Parts: sequence; structure tokens; C-alpha cells
Amino acid sequence: MRIRPLGDRVVIKRLEAEETTKSGIVLPNTAKEKPQEAEVVAVGPGGIVNEKEVKMEVKVGDKVLFSKYSGTEVKLDGEDFIILKQDDILAIVE
Amino acid sequence: MRIRPLGDRVVIKRLEAEETTKSGIVLPNTAKEKPQEAEVVAVGPGGIVNEKEVKMEVKVGDKVLFSKYSGTEVKLDGEDFIILKQDDILAIVE
Amino acid sequence: MRIRPLGDRVVIKRLEAEETTKSGIVLPNTAKEKPQEAEVVAVGPGGIVNEKEVKMEVKVGDKVLFSKYSGTEVKLDGEDFIILKQDDILAIVE
Amino acid sequence: MRIRPLGDRVVIKRLEAEETTKSGIVLPNTAKEKPQEAEVVAVGPGGIVNEKEVKMEVKVGDKVLFSKYSGTEVKLDGEDFIILKQDDILAIVE
Amino acid sequence: MRIRPLGDRVVIKRLEAEETTKSGIVLPNTAKEKPQEAEVVAVGPGGIVNEKEVKMEVKVGDKVLFSKYSGTEVKLDGEDFIILKQDDILAIVE
Amino acid sequence: MRIRPLGDRVVIKRLEAEETTKSGIVLPNTAKEKPQEAEVVAVGPGGIVNEKEVKMEVKVGDKVLFSKYSGTEVKLDGEDFIILKQDDILAIVE
Amino acid sequence: MRIRPLGDRVVIKRLEAEETTKSGIVLPNTAKEKPQEAEVVAVGPGGIVNEKEVKMEVKVGDKVLFSKYSGTEVKLDGEDFIILKQDDILAIVE
Repeated sequence: MRIRPLGDRVVIKRLEAEETTKSGIVLPNTAKEKPQEAEVVAVGPGGIVNEKEVKMEVKVGDKVLFSKYSGTEVKLDGEDFIILKQDDILAIVE
Repeated sequence: MRIRPLGDRVVIKRLEAEETTKSGIVLPNTAKEKPQEAEVVAVGPGGIVNEKEVKMEVKVGDKVLFSKYSGTEVKLDGEDFIILKQDDILAIVE
Repeated sequence: MRIRPLGDRVVIKRLEAEETTKSGIVLPNTAKEKPQEAEVVAVGPGGIVNEKEVKMEVKVGDKVLFSKYSGTEVKLDGEDFIILKQDDILAIVE
Repeated sequence: MRIRPLGDRVVIKRLEAEETTKSGIVLPNTAKEKPQEAEVVAVGPGGIVNEKEVKMEVKVGDKVLFSKYSGTEVKLDGEDFIILKQDDILAIVE
Repeated sequence: MRIRPLGDRVVIKRLEAEETTKSGIVLPNTAKEKPQEAEVVAVGPGGIVNEKEVKMEVKVGDKVLFSKYSGTEVKLDGEDFIILKQDDILAIVE
Repeated sequence: MRIRPLGDRVVIKRLEAEETTKSGIVLPNTAKEKPQEAEVVAVGPGGIVNEKEVKMEVKVGDKVLFSKYSGTEVKLDGEDFIILKQDDILAIVE
Repeated sequence: MRIRPLGDRVVIKRLEAEETTKSGIVLPNTAKEKPQEAEVVAVGPGGIVNEKEVKMEVKVGDKVLFSKYSGTEVKLDGEDFIILKQDDILAIVE
């Protein structure tokens, strides 16, 4: 079973707190809009979205920071994922 | 009797909880904007919608995830359907 | 006496509950935005509306579904009509 | 003394209830956004309004339906008028 | 001392109630958005405003109607003026 | 130390009440959106701002009127300044 | 480990109060939208953002003023950073 996001949407999987700590990023609990670290698991085709050419800049496997309250949570085969628009991804962590 | 959506609208039929479980997707009850799994039953022609070229990316029979609060519910010949814009469809599940 | 809608507006006449039942559509009472079945009685010329080319997709006599709270109600020669923009029409029922 | 509306604005004069009845239009008292019947008394030049080409579709003498809460009321030489944008005119009654 | 409005802004001077009466316009006290009669005292250059070509249609000396709550009041050399965008001017009274 | 505003931003220094009186402008205390008199101390380069060509119309030394609640206050080397967009400047006083 | 902002986003590091005082900028506590002084540590590629060509005007090492409530705070390897859009940067301090 596979999930294929439409347009400029991206499916990401939140990294566990342990992994987060390991990678050195500690996310503040008090920030109004909490960022989150996640791994990209599926990327929409981009192309024309609302008459605008959207070029996908993230790829499967990228570690990304995103705003906690963006996107929609889904559970697929027992795992939690988030579907959000690429524009809600703040940065790639390398 | 047939329902023909205008523009970039799509008619979908919500998949039953049983089917949902079978397909392996469990939708969280607590998410603020609950996603839903559904099957596409009719697709508008797309084309120029608000002066923007909209290409329909879903087709009849596709299993899709959509945001619970988008679209309008209708009952047709005893069955419930939802009419929503293609942009409110998050992903295709294959 | 005739009513001629401007731009992309459409005049529709709500179908009676009896007709609605006959056509097999039962509209849910609890939906937040209740759809309604109606018949198109007049169609604006379309053309340039807000600098956008609008092509009229409905024609007089079409049975359509629309959102209950869109448009403006008028009474003309004793009959009730609704004037709404074509974009507030969800689908054509055939 | 003459009033000359700017851009896509139109000056209309509300038709009296008596005239309204004579013309066969009865406006419902309970509608949230009450339509009103009026006669056009002055029409702006149209042309470029907010970088958009606006073509005036109504002319002096037209009987029109408009939304009650649109536009601004003015009293000129003892008579009440309403200045509104052409887009707030719903239909021409012929 | 001179005031030179930027872009599509216009400086107007509200006409006194006496003048208003003389010109035959009586402004209703109860209207939600009260129109006002004023004389134009300075006109911006127009040109490109927010990437849109704005052509100034009013000139110094014009009597205009405007919405009471638009614009900003200033006092200059003891006189009150209002600075507003040309689009907030409803009509020219001739 | 120098402050260089980005894009279409302008740095201004509010003129003291004394200066304001001297120049003949008295700003009303009760206006909802109080205008203010200030002197321009730095001007951004303009150019493309949000895909729009912005031409700077004010220059260092200009006396300007601006809306009180626009922009951001900063204190630099003991002096108070305001950084605002050129579009929030109402007029130049000469 | 490196953080690479997407599109027109910029990563900045807030300057300590001590540094702030040293540089002569004192930020008011009472301003509704408090500006902040920070140093740029990473700059997105710019390019096409929402169909608009965005040219990055800040570079790593620049001292900038920004609005306190813009952007998202992240902690990376024990240090606090803010990710914000270049448009939320008010000025460069030289």
C-alpha cells in the first residue's frame, strides 16, 4: 500500500524524540508555533498548483523542519504520517 | 440518475470504517482536521476555473484521503456522497 | 415580465420537497451547509467577470445542486427564486 | 445639479413599495440579505477599475435588483439615492 | 506650506453643513456609512500604485461625495483636511 | 552605525510636538488613526517588492505625514525611529 | 550538521542583550511589535517563491532588525535560532 500526495503536498514521518535528541535538535515546548523534525516519505509531483509552477525542493529521505500545526495527520498501516504543503516545510537539516 | 460536478469539483463516497480498517488506514479521532478515506465516483471536467487551468488528477475509482470538514454532503438514491473541490483531496492511496 | 441576471449570475427555482423525493435526492437536515436541488430559470451572459473569462456551464432547465446559504432570494409574480453566482452551483443532476 | 459616479459605480433610486407591487415583485422581509428593486439614474464611465476593464452593463432607466446592504445612501435635492458598484446589481428586470 | 499626497491619494476639505444645505445635499444621520460632501484641495500624481496604473479622475476644486469613515483626518494651518485614496471617492457633484 | 531599510521600507524620525506646532500642523487627539509628522532619515532601494516594481517617491530630509499605527519603532544610538513601508506614508509636507 | 532554509527563508541568531546595548540599539519593551537585532546564519536560495522571483538581499553575517513575532524558533546543537521569511526582516544595521 502506497500513499501518493497530490500537487505540491508532501508526506512526512515525525522523528521520535530520541532521534531528535541524537541529531542535536531540541524543540522548545513553549514556542507558540512549535517546529518539528521529520523525514520525507512521499513527495507530490508539483507542477502547476493554483496556476503557479511549483518545483519540489525536497526529496524522499530528507530530514526537514516544519511547523507543528500545519498539515493533516493520517495513520497508515499502523504508522503516523503528516500530509502538508511543501511551503509549510521550513528547512532541510543536513 | 447521474450527478455531474461542475468545474474542478469531485463527488466521492466515504469508505466504511470496516473497509477503512481492511485497507490498513486508521484515522485518528482526536485530530483537529480529521482525514477521511473515500472513493471517487464522479469528476468534474476541470478546465478553466476562476481563470486558472485546472487539470483533474483523480479519476473515478481512485481511493483518496480528504479533510473531513471540506465539501458538502448530499444523499442520492439513498446513498451519501460528498461534493468537494479537487484541491481538498490530500492524496491518492494505492 | 422577465428577470435577466448580470455577469455570471444564475436564477434558479428551488424544487419542492415532493419533487426532490421523486428524483431520489434526500437532503440531510443536519448538514452545516445544506445542499438544495433547483431548476435553472435564467442564466447570465458570462463573459468577462472581474477580468476573468467566465463560460456559463448551466442552461435553462438544468436540475442543479447548490449550497443553501449562497445567493439571494427574490419573489417574482408570486414565485420564489434565488439569484446566485454560477460558482455556487455544485453539480448538475441528470 | 448633477451627480456623476466614478469608475464602475452606479446611482440608483429605490422604487416605492407601491411600484414594487405593481411590477409584481414582492421582496421577502425575512431574507438575511434583502434584495431591492430600483431604477438606475446615473452610470459611471467604467473603463479601468483596479487595473481591470469594467464594461458597464446597465444604463439609465433600467429597473434593477440589488442587495439591500450594498452601497451608500445619499439624499440629493430632497430625493434618496444609493451609490453602489455595478457588481452589487444582481439582475435587470424587464 | 503645501501638502502633496503620494500615489493615488487625494486631500479633501469637508464642506460645512451650511454649504451642504445650500448645494441641496442633505446627508442622512442614520446611514451606517455616512457619505460626506467635500472639495478636493490636492491630488496625488497617480501613476503606478501597487503595480496598477491609476489615473486620477478628480481635480482640485471638484465637489465630491466620500464615505465618512475612509481616510485620515489632519489639521493644517488651522484647517481640517482628510487624506484618502481616490477609490474612496464615490462621485463628483456638478 | 547606519540603518539600511530593505525593499520599500523607509526609516523616519517623528518630529517633536514643538516642531509640529511650529510647522502649523496640529494633529487631532481623537482621530482613530492619528497621523503623525516625521522626517525621512533612510530610504530602502525599492525595486522589485513582491514581484511589483516599487519606485521610491520620498527622499532623506522629506517631511512626511504617516499613520500612527503603521510601522515598527526602534531606538538607535538613543534616538527613536520608525521603520515603515513607503505605502504607509500619506503625504509630503512642503 | 547544517540547516538549509527553503525558498526565501532566512535563519538568524538573536543577538544577546549585552551585544545589543554595545551596538547602541535599545529595543523598547512596550512596543506592540518589538523589533529584534540578530545575525544572519543561513540564507535560502530565493528564486521562484509563490510564482514570484525573490532575490535574497541579506547574506550570512549581516546584522538585521526583525519583528519579534515573525518566524519560528528552533534550537540546534544547543543554540537558539529563528527561521523567518526575508520579508520579515526590516533593515540591515551596518
